[in-house]
Amino acid sequence: MNDTLKCIINRYSCRKFGDTQVNMQDLLSIAKAGLASPSGMNRQNWQIIMVTNQEIIKELDEEGLKVLSEFPDKSLYDRILKRGGKLFYGAPALIIIAIKETFPKGAELIDLGIVAQTISLAATSLGVDNCHCGFLAFCFAGSRGNEFKEKLEFPDGYECGMGVLLGYSAERNMPHKPNIDKLTIID
Amino acid sequence: MNDTLKCIINRYSCRKFGDTQVNMQDLLSIAKAGLASPSGMNRQNWQIIMVTNQEIIKELDEEGLKVLSEFPDKSLYDRILKRGGKLFYGAPALIIIAIKETFPKGAELIDLGIVAQTISLAATSLGVDNCHCGFLAFCFAGSRGNEFKEKLEFPDGYECGMGVLLGYSAERNMPHKPNIDKLTIID
Repeated sequence: MNDTLKCIINRYSCRKFGDTQVNMQDLLSIAKAGLASPSGMNRQNWQIIMVTNQEIIKELDEEGLKVLSEFPDKSLYDRILKRGGKLFYGAPALIIIAIKETFPKGAELIDLGIVAQTISLAATSLGVDNCHCGFLAFCFAGSRGNEFKEKLEFPDGYECGMGVLLGYSAERNMPHKPNIDKLTIID
Repeated sequence: MNDTLKCIINRYSCRKFGDTQVNMQDLLSIAKAGLASPSGMNRQNWQIIMVTNQEIIKELDEEGLKVLSEFPDKSLYDRILKRGGKLFYGAPALIIIAIKETFPKGAELIDLGIVAQTISLAATSLGVDNCHCGFLAFCFAGSRGNEFKEKLEFPDGYECGMGVLLGYSAERNMPHKPNIDKLTIID
């Protein structure tokens, strides 16, 4: 099995990060890999925002958790509390993928997934643990949304898509077991 | 630069395939890599359908082109005609990613992009040229949609998401130039 296939198979979602920061060279390699992602009609309607500022990460984490705590359905909130009470699981770095609505509607979400996985596999290849973070959108769903968009230099017309958390695991997880029933061969 | 980063940077969208079929072992490695993709809540609301049956590929290609030709806006149709008049650019193998609508609405599209890019990078790592194919959805948008879903053994409730074309290029293309303006650092 080649190194890329190994990366794909061994990647797992890290949900407990230690404090050690990833060096900037690796962070840049990871973010730049994201820029090589394909997109529909090559429109690249994304902005890859690499955040290492600890104060902003803390503010985002707290705001997202607050928004989540105010949901009528408490199951997601309880899930985060059970996992340590941190939306970003203590990750010292975070890539925000901001996106712009495009045509046909929803195509920007496919592009978003493509970029997130490119970033995730680039990180894995460098030994950087990572986790896709859909929760990130909650940080922008409350009253501080516009403030954060400004602080994080979102381009006009862009919204938070999702995040990829980056760091080194304090607790390793296993990759999910591939479900072979999800594969059909039409020969 | 490690092999995975090289794959990410060197991947390009192949738009002219030769006739040579990819061997089944590589096709299976590529499809199985897709099964290792992360998904929101690990719900894996996808079906990865590997199609090597040339008759079905031809039927899908013709039907998709027919649907496209009936659009009031002829720009996409003209684009395909200019590129050789084949929706799948002559690819001898095709992975269809079928998806099921999920909650929150649109999350399945993010998962779709993640799987497509995993498949694409797995293929690149094995020297198999590839191209994401959003056009595939057109093949299911006309009167033959249900017939194709049956032939391709779509599970109940699943719809065509997108495709990844696989084969060997008859004409190489260049990767798109990464746009560094799409990267922001918040340090």
